[in-house]
Amino acid sequence: MKLIADCFGGDKSPSANVEGAVLALQEHEDLTLVLTGDEKTVKEELARLGYSGDRIEIVHAPEVITGEDKPTDAIRLKKESSMIKAISMLRTEKDIAGMVSTGATGSLIAAATLRIGRIRGIRRPAFCPILPTMTGDIVGVCDSGANVDVTAEMLLQQAIIGSAYLKYAYGKENPRVALLNIGVESEKGDNLRKEAYPLLKNCASINFVGNMESRDLLSGNYDLVVCDGFSGNVLCKATEGTAMELLKKLKEQIFSKTRYKLGAVLQKQMFKDFKDMMNYQNYGGSVLLGCEKTIVKGHGSSNATAVKVCINQAYRMSGGAMNEEIRAALDSLEQP
Amino acid sequence: MKLIADCFGGDKSPSANVEGAVLALQEHEDLTLVLTGDEKTVKEELARLGYSGDRIEIVHAPEVITGEDKPTDAIRLKKESSMIKAISMLRTEKDIAGMVSTGATGSLIAAATLRIGRIRGIRRPAFCPILPTMTGDIVGVCDSGANVDVTAEMLLQQAIIGSAYLKYAYGKENPRVALLNIGVESEKGDNLRKEAYPLLKNCASINFVGNMESRDLLSGNYDLVVCDGFSGNVLCKATEGTAMELLKKLKEQIFSKTRYKLGAVLQKQMFKDFKDMMNYQNYGGSVLLGCEKTIVKGHGSSNATAVKVCINQAYRMSGGAMNEEIRAALDSLEQP
Repeated sequence: MKLIADCFGGDKSPSANVEGAVLALQEHEDLTLVLTGDEKTVKEELARLGYSGDRIEIVHAPEVITGEDKPTDAIRLKKESSMIKAISMLRTEKDIAGMVSTGATGSLIAAATLRIGRIRGIRRPAFCPILPTMTGDIVGVCDSGANVDVTAEMLLQQAIIGSAYLKYAYGKENPRVALLNIGVESEKGDNLRKEAYPLLKNCASINFVGNMESRDLLSGNYDLVVCDGFSGNVLCKATEGTAMELLKKLKEQIFSKTRYKLGAVLQKQMFKDFKDMMNYQNYGGSVLLGCEKTIVKGHGSSNATAVKVCINQAYRMSGGAMNEEIRAALDSLEQP
Repeated sequence: MKLIADCFGGDKSPSANVEGAVLALQEHEDLTLVLTGDEKTVKEELARLGYSGDRIEIVHAPEVITGEDKPTDAIRLKKESSMIKAISMLRTEKDIAGMVSTGATGSLIAAATLRIGRIRGIRRPAFCPILPTMTGDIVGVCDSGANVDVTAEMLLQQAIIGSAYLKYAYGKENPRVALLNIGVESEKGDNLRKEAYPLLKNCASINFVGNMESRDLLSGNYDLVVCDGFSGNVLCKATEGTAMELLKKLKEQIFSKTRYKLGAVLQKQMFKDFKDMMNYQNYGGSVLLGCEKTIVKGHGSSNATAVKVCINQAYRMSGGAMNEEIRAALDSLEQP
């Protein structure tokens, strides 16, 4: 298995990316990695880590795409950037199965959509982040922002590719798929949801369990939530944002009084566990689903462990079986 | 000031509704209330509370609308219900300025939309719940589910009616209005948002501050967030749901070990303050904005204090000045 890792563009790049790559190699004996980025810096990082193996190839890319670059400009003007070089190699090199980046989301989506082929029949690639539930499990949200103006058919495709993803990357057989809606009753929602509901219900290759209200995302009752990219983005950011704001507020409160601080001393392990549970970095990156090759977008603030988890995700998805299953499910839709 | 209170249909009805009414009367000397519901039961509740004043009128309504009733059927078939009787009186009795209900949301929206006139120029009434922010302030979300398929013009109207509401019901001069979006940059979003952004930006009668991501709802940087009813519903329920799930989980964790419990003994007041801050009941109900008369929908689980807060909200909104201001803003749009 050969994967490519864009080593620049994240908040902790390139050290977190290079270290994450080395950690991933330790976990998979049959893995080799191409690292894109400034060659000298990457080499220095590898030396710092004491890596002396032969499973890393460095491809020099002196430029870096940032969040300030307009995606269309970034693709056109920053051809020598670590991200665009990685995308270009992913496109042309047959043996490279997938890519991991912690760089700018907009540019990555635009470059992947333009340069990497879609699975036959897929209208648009879709983003699928993974969130931790309150039951210690995970839930995927597809789409979370790649496509903001969608059709009911696209929602059905998201259910299919998301289900295959949860099976191959997280070992979930027959994942429970819900449609994000404003109520659980089947007739709820706007025109899009009313049109999508019967399509999802009648699709034999997914396990559709009905509508879900946003308040139940973390309940553990669902494995995949299907939504347009606009409301999916609202859902993910509201859920993560509220959790972060509450923990921040709680910390502030604890530090406001000595007796609260004393109490917290006794609860040190509890708060650590709680923070760990809520830490998205433990659950991997957002995957751009529906492309012929694997693309994993790690959070901009990813540390080495988070990068390693992203590479592991890409490893599990890139055997070829996942896209085969998606193709079969799409074909069965066309010939009912 | 004369208001009407539907005393049935909530989880704690009628006792919470009747007690809330009595509490509101104690706060406003010029307020009189009409209570709808089973006369005998309401009288018993008033006797239990020792109320002997002359500012309450009871209108007998033996039926109750529940969440199970289909809204269109409820309006047609349950004419003798406390909610429909209240709506009918609100429509016909000129001196009744507003209404409060803790009953079924769908039926209330349907009945209000059909029976209560809209402010001239308003396309559709919109729901505006109020949420507590992390800075101890409040933020309104308009719309949160009354209209799921909307136009850019409707979003602009929601900004106008929501701003007037925050001014009259919460004393906010020049409330900061944001458009819910998937990024803060002006060009972000789907077609609807791209069309709405310049309309909001160019409207002289509101204080538009730009796009807001869902994660910043509780930041205290915004007073009103404008959105379609679908994503507004996702936003509110994800925010409230995550907060509730986290507090539940934290409680569970605390009770899992003796040392955590001991710590929590020291933090008792902190957790109480925290829970109070997050308790929506302290901030009032959702208001259906854009109607000629005031309609406040309290949460189904409202207790007496929450009902009182809803009646206070209706009291502050119903002087006539708020709707005058909305009419003026709408008129100024038509004649630029």
